[in-house]
Amino acid sequence: MQIDNIDVQAYPGSQKIYVNGTLYPDMRIGMRQINLTPTVKIGDDGHKITTPNAPVVVYDTSGPYTDPDYKIDINKGLPRMRDQWLNADSDLEQLPAITSEYGRMREADKSLDAIRFPNRHAPRRAREGKHITQMAKAQQGIITPEMEYVAIRENLNNAQLGIPTYITPEFVRSEIASGRAIIPANINHPEAEPMIIGRKFAVKLNTNIGNSALSSGIEEEINKAVWSCYWGGDTLMDLSTGDNIHETREWIIRNCPVPVGTVPVYQALEKVNGRVEDLTWEIYRDTLIEQAEQGVDYFTIHAGALKAHAEMVGERLTGIVSRGGSIMTRWAVLHNEENFLYTHFDEICQILEQYDVAVSLGDGLRPGSIHDANDRSQFLELDVLGELTQIAWRHNVQVLIEGPGHVPMHKIEENMDRQVRKCAEAPFYTLGPLVTDIAPGYDHITSAIGAAQIAWLGTAMICYVTPKEHLALPELEDVRVGVITYKIAAHAADIAKRLPGAEVRDNAMSKARFEFRWKDQFNLSLDPERAKSYYVSSQEFDEHYCTMCGPNFCAMRISQNLIKDCDKHVF
Amino acid sequence: MQIDNIDVQAYPGSQKIYVNGTLYPDMRIGMRQINLTPTVKIGDDGHKITTPNAPVVVYDTSGPYTDPDYKIDINKGLPRMRDQWLNADSDLEQLPAITSEYGRMREADKSLDAIRFPNRHAPRRAREGKHITQMAKAQQGIITPEMEYVAIRENLNNAQLGIPTYITPEFVRSEIASGRAIIPANINHPEAEPMIIGRKFAVKLNTNIGNSALSSGIEEEINKAVWSCYWGGDTLMDLSTGDNIHETREWIIRNCPVPVGTVPVYQALEKVNGRVEDLTWEIYRDTLIEQAEQGVDYFTIHAGALKAHAEMVGERLTGIVSRGGSIMTRWAVLHNEENFLYTHFDEICQILEQYDVAVSLGDGLRPGSIHDANDRSQFLELDVLGELTQIAWRHNVQVLIEGPGHVPMHKIEENMDRQVRKCAEAPFYTLGPLVTDIAPGYDHITSAIGAAQIAWLGTAMICYVTPKEHLALPELEDVRVGVITYKIAAHAADIAKRLPGAEVRDNAMSKARFEFRWKDQFNLSLDPERAKSYYVSSQEFDEHYCTMCGPNFCAMRISQNLIKDCDKHVF
Repeated sequence: MQIDNIDVQAYPGSQKIYVNGTLYPDMRIGMRQINLTPTVKIGDDGHKITTPNAPVVVYDTSGPYTDPDYKIDINKGLPRMRDQWLNADSDLEQLPAITSEYGRMREADKSLDAIRFPNRHAPRRAREGKHITQMAKAQQGIITPEMEYVAIRENLNNAQLGIPTYITPEFVRSEIASGRAIIPANINHPEAEPMIIGRKFAVKLNTNIGNSALSSGIEEEINKAVWSCYWGGDTLMDLSTGDNIHETREWIIRNCPVPVGTVPVYQALEKVNGRVEDLTWEIYRDTLIEQAEQGVDYFTIHAGALKAHAEMVGERLTGIVSRGGSIMTRWAVLHNEENFLYTHFDEICQILEQYDVAVSLGDGLRPGSIHDANDRSQFLELDVLGELTQIAWRHNVQVLIEGPGHVPMHKIEENMDRQVRKCAEAPFYTLGPLVTDIAPGYDHITSAIGAAQIAWLGTAMICYVTPKEHLALPELEDVRVGVITYKIAAHAADIAKRLPGAEVRDNAMSKARFEFRWKDQFNLSLDPERAKSYYVSSQEFDEHYCTMCGPNFCAMRISQNLIKDCDKHVF
Repeated sequence: MQIDNIDVQAYPGSQKIYVNGTLYPDMRIGMRQINLTPTVKIGDDGHKITTPNAPVVVYDTSGPYTDPDYKIDINKGLPRMRDQWLNADSDLEQLPAITSEYGRMREADKSLDAIRFPNRHAPRRAREGKHITQMAKAQQGIITPEMEYVAIRENLNNAQLGIPTYITPEFVRSEIASGRAIIPANINHPEAEPMIIGRKFAVKLNTNIGNSALSSGIEEEINKAVWSCYWGGDTLMDLSTGDNIHETREWIIRNCPVPVGTVPVYQALEKVNGRVEDLTWEIYRDTLIEQAEQGVDYFTIHAGALKAHAEMVGERLTGIVSRGGSIMTRWAVLHNEENFLYTHFDEICQILEQYDVAVSLGDGLRPGSIHDANDRSQFLELDVLGELTQIAWRHNVQVLIEGPGHVPMHKIEENMDRQVRKCAEAPFYTLGPLVTDIAPGYDHITSAIGAAQIAWLGTAMICYVTPKEHLALPELEDVRVGVITYKIAAHAADIAKRLPGAEVRDNAMSKARFEFRWKDQFNLSLDPERAKSYYVSSQEFDEHYCTMCGPNFCAMRISQNLIKDCDKHVF
């Protein structure tokens, strides 16, 4: 199988820049620099006065795709950037081949050659008895390359602006050591650029892609993955539940510059043809290894949805709306046994630790309607997630806690407060929440309202919702709208949290707006192309008013004249 | 001029119902009843068990347009529903003709016959010395028909649900009397259905339409107006600044079932060909009378932007972004005189009182960037709006206070708190606020995030922002998206404010979702058509899973099976 190389546009008016590390000087952290045109004024003597505007450097999730010097080759995969560090780590061993049974079976199946990613690598694993996760190293006092990488990435242009760079590599290390932040970075996903999730850092956003039994092929999913990174997705979950999950995932991971997450029980269920009762710990365990060796950076594991919770489901208006939660609860009831993810959680952590896969503790009982928000099953499960956090940390496994869902605004704060308290400040990762149930087709908006609020209160990562939520799988346009909507929510939260430097881009935009520098406005936009396409005008860009108000009613134009009048001491 | 009658679809699955008044038994309050299909379950014996679902009654802003018994005739205008009450009011006099000089000039101009609305009426006015505003009557202890109308309209199906109807006509009267709420209801706009704006009632949303010198004709604007009401706009501002403002407005008002607002200075400026320095109090005064006699229900008046504030504009990143504010401030500086709207405010109120036009005190110095939010010019102007509120109330003129604009989330609460304190609880009416500046093309979303929060905190009406904000004038699709987005924000705030009955529609939706009643879900949606169009499926509607997850991964399906298992005491 050969996949056509996708066409990724460079960001308009921008250039890819690289900043070098200090502790690790060979390190190159990619960023996007938006170059601005100068401010031009006409002086009293009629001469033009030109003042340059400093470029704005912004966080860049697009990886090598927007580097004009990089030749995209989807069939080869992205450069394995972290190999340089991982190869030097004597705590890691290079395995001769993948070890999962299912993975080996797929490898041996000739009929899959046609759809297989061509450029596969044998996996790495921790040597026996070695503790290799970012958390383990942080607790040993080691500043890893990944830690310096994210420290530089988070600071952006603060130094240039004279803002103190409080995000030092040592600060990152201490946040990772405490469990308050994570760097999801599987040793088998060296293509991904390190990033950090924690409430003292910029709010991150996750996007979901993946096929279902009813739709979508490999090429389409890769396109969605790259598209998501291009628009600003910080991490990517592959939620495929259809055919060829194993092969689809390989293509995605090898071409994905951001951490990739999955919900392993989806694939485990496919392996037993969708029959919940046939799920076993052995099949699930092998799935974890299969995916860890492919390079999945974090697993959503619904280990907190217990059998006792199943009895409470009848109290609810919308039962269980988490796929993983409903599967595991039903399994527990059918077998009259406790959820095997809970009973085997210690063993799960032992596997995850060997590859530095982070665990994202799934909220299988998240409310699926505002009616069910903050009810007893939701909060009982959160208590269990708190217990599981401590178990994971004992194994040096990095932890995220997943959160709702559907929550009316006045019940959002309690979610955040309880999560911090019950889960010892492990980073919170929420889906929205949607603040009303009545707007299918617009749930990116109902959920962005809740996401902005909960992120302001401390949620470290928000999971996007697209306009197709509740209705169908997202297509490319939905991914774009979902990502931009969540960039808005995340950025609004960064500003409200008063992260140093968060307003730089806003201020540059507003200055450009006041000075009618239209091209700069577009280039500074989260979606330059769309902004420009809406600016319908027969005029050239430098006209000093816009099509919204026309020349006589442009407040900014009148306001500029006003400032000139005041300068001339008219009164 | 004949305008093609617009094609308004009935709401799917809904019927128009009318509720009668008690104090005024001839009164018929239109509402929309969404009828639901029954819940069907298969019992243990294999028989179908069918349980009906109660219909959901929702607030309806579409007026007669969605009544199948009403024959739309744009050239005749809507039925003059309030005439029955107004004709009976001996405090009102019927004038022989319009009294404004400009209005008479336009009437006499034969060249305008071609574009004139055919079915015009002579205006009403208060008799000398009579106090006829809703506020005046409320303070006299009179419950007007409009007050009973809105009381019934706000309660919706609370009685049916056993929720106490705390919104009684007397409660409405007392809120109006205190100035905490307003019913914008010009005696010359009898076509509009009464509605109330106040923080103890459902949050309302305003939409803006109107042409500019660069675009849009009369027919297009009428279409936008009706479209806005269809999707849920509670009030409508005609912000036209282009040609034939007078005639365009007549068409809009005569066909608009919701209150109409304007910014009279826009038309006054057009009358002096856009030359700010040529504006005069006399021209402005005549414009007020002209528009009051056409039936405009509320005027935005930028009387709080003072000359002293102009000097502070240079401190800002984006100067003045309110068109009215920039016009009046510049006028003051050019003439070295105080803003004539401020100096003549008493006289303005005398005019408004005669027609019961509400004043919406414009925030001419609202921030146009998050950088400028909550700065001293913004708050100094708010202090002035507080003074002006007291003056308006002395004349029994109902008051709204306009608010920002661009405000980061952490600065929103201060806006609300100050407004309540400085303006003696007069209802607040905000534009967004936008919580970041960097998303042109998506500013309906950046602003809905802020609008939901400020509405929850007590803002009574939120002014929509469309995707075209900052870029171009909205078209029909933008109006629709803007209205739905703001319905989401307003409704989310109603829920968070715990308005009795606010969750009824959400709960009906969630129940329909859990029971796979797809048609009911669409019909209960804010935008049924769009929701349905996204539900791309080759199956019939009653399939028990959706295209998002496919059959094996439908959490709700698994969850329903789980409840059945529990019912059967499997464990």
